[in-house]
Amino acid sequence: MKSQKVGIGLLGMGTVGGGVASLLQINEESIQEKAGAELQLKKILVRDSAKSRRVELPAALFTSEATDILENPEIDLIVELMGGVEPAREYLEKALKSGKYVVTANKDLMARYGTDLLELARQSGGAIFFEGSVGGGIPLVRPLKHCLAANRIDRIMGIINGTTNYILSRMSLEGIEFQDALLEAQEKGFAEADSSNDLEGWDAAYKLVVLSRLAFGCSAGMEDVYVRGINNVTAQDLMHAEKLGYTIKLLAVGERVDGFISLRVFPALLPLKHPLASVYNEFNALFVEGNAVGEVMFYGKGAGAMPTASAVVSDIIDASRCLSYKIEDGLMEVPLKDIPVISGEKMVSSFYLRLQAEDRPGVFASLANAFGDEDVSLDMILQDRSEKGIAEIVLVTHDVREANYFRALQNIKEMPSIRQINGVFRVFGKNKESL
Amino acid sequence: MKSQKVGIGLLGMGTVGGGVASLLQINEESIQEKAGAELQLKKILVRDSAKSRRVELPAALFTSEATDILENPEIDLIVELMGGVEPAREYLEKALKSGKYVVTANKDLMARYGTDLLELARQSGGAIFFEGSVGGGIPLVRPLKHCLAANRIDRIMGIINGTTNYILSRMSLEGIEFQDALLEAQEKGFAEADSSNDLEGWDAAYKLVVLSRLAFGCSAGMEDVYVRGINNVTAQDLMHAEKLGYTIKLLAVGERVDGFISLRVFPALLPLKHPLASVYNEFNALFVEGNAVGEVMFYGKGAGAMPTASAVVSDIIDASRCLSYKIEDGLMEVPLKDIPVISGEKMVSSFYLRLQAEDRPGVFASLANAFGDEDVSLDMILQDRSEKGIAEIVLVTHDVREANYFRALQNIKEMPSIRQINGVFRVFGKNKESL
Repeated sequence: MKSQKVGIGLLGMGTVGGGVASLLQINEESIQEKAGAELQLKKILVRDSAKSRRVELPAALFTSEATDILENPEIDLIVELMGGVEPAREYLEKALKSGKYVVTANKDLMARYGTDLLELARQSGGAIFFEGSVGGGIPLVRPLKHCLAANRIDRIMGIINGTTNYILSRMSLEGIEFQDALLEAQEKGFAEADSSNDLEGWDAAYKLVVLSRLAFGCSAGMEDVYVRGINNVTAQDLMHAEKLGYTIKLLAVGERVDGFISLRVFPALLPLKHPLASVYNEFNALFVEGNAVGEVMFYGKGAGAMPTASAVVSDIIDASRCLSYKIEDGLMEVPLKDIPVISGEKMVSSFYLRLQAEDRPGVFASLANAFGDEDVSLDMILQDRSEKGIAEIVLVTHDVREANYFRALQNIKEMPSIRQINGVFRVFGKNKESL
Repeated sequence: MKSQKVGIGLLGMGTVGGGVASLLQINEESIQEKAGAELQLKKILVRDSAKSRRVELPAALFTSEATDILENPEIDLIVELMGGVEPAREYLEKALKSGKYVVTANKDLMARYGTDLLELARQSGGAIFFEGSVGGGIPLVRPLKHCLAANRIDRIMGIINGTTNYILSRMSLEGIEFQDALLEAQEKGFAEADSSNDLEGWDAAYKLVVLSRLAFGCSAGMEDVYVRGINNVTAQDLMHAEKLGYTIKLLAVGERVDGFISLRVFPALLPLKHPLASVYNEFNALFVEGNAVGEVMFYGKGAGAMPTASAVVSDIIDASRCLSYKIEDGLMEVPLKDIPVISGEKMVSSFYLRLQAEDRPGVFASLANAFGDEDVSLDMILQDRSEKGIAEIVLVTHDVREANYFRALQNIKEMPSIRQINGVFRVFGKNKESL
C-alpha cells in the first residue's frame, strides 16, 4: 500500500506551518497508514530560508521562490498556510489550474474567494480542502457536508472567535472591564497586538461566510454579513445580563428566514442554561439545527498551532487518499445557490438596552411611549437607584421587528432627558422555540 | 447527473425505518442532488406486509421475504434497521458477499460482528456505513475517522445512553429517587418497559466498542468492556456529589494506558464545570482527546426516529455517491490492531464511597486504617449527623490503584461496625490532567 508517494509543498511556515510539519513527524506512522501513501514534504515556501525554525527540517527543503513549489512536477498537493488574500489566492489559482490538490487553512481567502476557488477546482479536476479555515481543530466542514447531509440546516449559531470569547469570559467570570481583559488576553497570547479584526467581528464574519456555504449551500459573501463587535460590552452589561439569567457572547448566526438567508455577527444575550453559554475562554463551539437531527453542537479549541494542524493534516490525509487511490469525485460538491439575503430590518429580535436617563417624573413614561409608538413591547425592566439625579435603566423587549426597534431607539436618543445609550444587544432564546 | 439510479432495499420498518422513509421524502430534492443519483426505494422487508404504516408508501414495496431484497439485482444498497443480531448478521453477510453496499444503525451487531463485517466488505469490494449505530444523529463516525485522522486519540469519554442520562438528570434536577425517575422516563418514552439493557450499561458498552475501533483502531470486543449500571445511584449520592462540586453521569470511557487499551462503562462523579456535566436528559455527548487537537466534544440527541434517520440517510447519501460516481476506496479503512486490554485492577482511579457505620469511638480509626494498610489516601470526608447511632460517611480517595482500593473495601465490608456500603463510584477530573 505504501508504494504510492504523495509529494507535498508547503506555502508558509509560521505558527500553523510549524505545527503541521511537527505533527507530520509526531504521528508519521499512523498518518501514512491512513493516507495509504508515503507523504513526502518536498518544498516549503518561506520569506527567509536562512531563518532558524523550531521544527527540525533539512535546509534544502526551504525556498523563497513560489515557482519551486507551484511548478514542481514532484508536488501533487499544495498546503497553503500563509494567511491573507494575496499572494495566497494567486498561488492557489495556479495550483488548481495545473490540476494539483490544495489544502488551506485560510479563512479570509475562503470567505472572499472560496466560491471561485471551488469552481476552479471542479473545472480543473483538482480539489480544495479547507477544514482548518474554520473552528481550528473542531470538525465542522465534513460534519456539515457529509454527516448532516440528510438535513435541511435551518440555523447555525456559534462562538467562532477565540479572542473575543476569552475577553468576554474574563469579564464575566472576574467582573473586570473590557480594556483589562483585552490586556490579559494579549499577555497570554489569545489576542494579537492589533486585534481589531477579532474585536470588531470580522474574523467571525469570515468564518460565518465559509460555514454558511456548507450549511445552506448559498453563495453569500462578506458584503452580506451584518457585523458588530464587542467593544461596547461592559462589565456592567454582563452583570445585568446575569441578573436576568443570561450571559453575553459574540455570536455568529446564520439562518433561513422565509426563503431568505440571514448572516449576522453580534454580541448577544444568551440564556445561562444554553449549551453555548458554558463555552469559555479560548474554546469555540458551533450549534447546528437540522430538520431531522434537531440540535447538535461541536466544541473544541478554535485556534492554536496544534489544533489547527490537526485539521490541516486530516485534510492532507484525505487529499492524499484521493491521490493515492485515484479517487475521483471524492469530495461532495453541490453547486451553490443564489439564495437572497434578508434585509436586517426585517428580522425579528428581542433587544437588551441599557441607558442613563434623568431621574425625574415623566421620563419613564416618555421612554415607554417611544417604544409603544413603534409597537415595541417591553418584557423586563431593571432600574438601579439613581446617582446624582441620573438613573440607569435596563430594558429587555419582547420579539420585535428590528426596523421598529431602531426607529424607537432613534427617537429615544433624541430625547433631552436621555443622557447616554450604553448597550444595545440582541437577546437569544427567550422563547424556547427560538433557541 | 441524475441519470444515475441507486436502488435501495430497507430491512425493517420500525421507528427508525419510518423516520428514514419519511426523511427521504421530506428532503428528497437536496438528498438526491447531494447523492448525485436518483434514489429509488425498491423493497422493504417487514414481518407483516399488510400492517398500516405512518409513512405513505405503495403496498407493492413491502415484502416479508428477505430474498426479495438480498437477491434483487435492482438493489445496490441495503439499509438494515431491524436491530438485534440475528437474522440481521446473516442478511448483511449475504449482501456484502454479493458486493452490495450496506448502511446499518445496528449497534449490537456492529459491536459483536463489526470487525468481521468490515473485513468481509473489504474482501468483497462492498462497503458498510454505520454512522447511525452510535450517538443517533450526532456525527461521530466520520469525525473520528476522517476529521481527527491526524491525531493519536488518547481518550474518548461520553454520555452515550439517553435512558440513563434522562434518569440521572431527573434525579439530580428534581431530587427524586431512581424508581420514580425510571417511571417518568418510561411514561415519556425515554425508557423501554424492560430497560435493563440500558440501565445495566450494556447499550453504552455496545456503542463504546464501536467507537473504540474508530478511535484506537483496536479490535477489542464486548468481552473486554468493564460494565456497571446506574441501579445503585441514589438521590442521596447525587446530593453528596453536588456538595463536593460534582454530578453523577453514566460514562463510557475508552483510553490508552501505557500501551494498553481500557474500555469501561460506569457511573462516575464528574466536576460540575466539565462540559459533559451540563449534558442533560435525552442528550448525548462524546468528549474526545487527541494529541494534536486537544479536547473536542460532539453533542446532540443520541436516539429517536428522526435524529437516527439523519445519520442513516447521510450514510445513504455517501454510499449512493460512491455507487453513482463509481468511487472505489471511498471509505478510509485501516486494518484493526490487536492492542491488549489492560486488566481493570491495574487502573488508577479516585473513588467516592458512601457507607453507614455505627457511631462509636474507634470506628473511623479502623476505617482509616483499612485504607492506610492498602496505601489508599483520603482526599475528602463528609459525615452527616448520626441517626439512631448510625452515621452516614462519604469518603473520596486520592488516585489509587484499583486493586488496592477494592482490597481495602473488602476488609471494610467485613468489619462488624459497618452496616451498609451504599455507593461506590469513580470520580473523574479531580486533577486537571485527568480531565
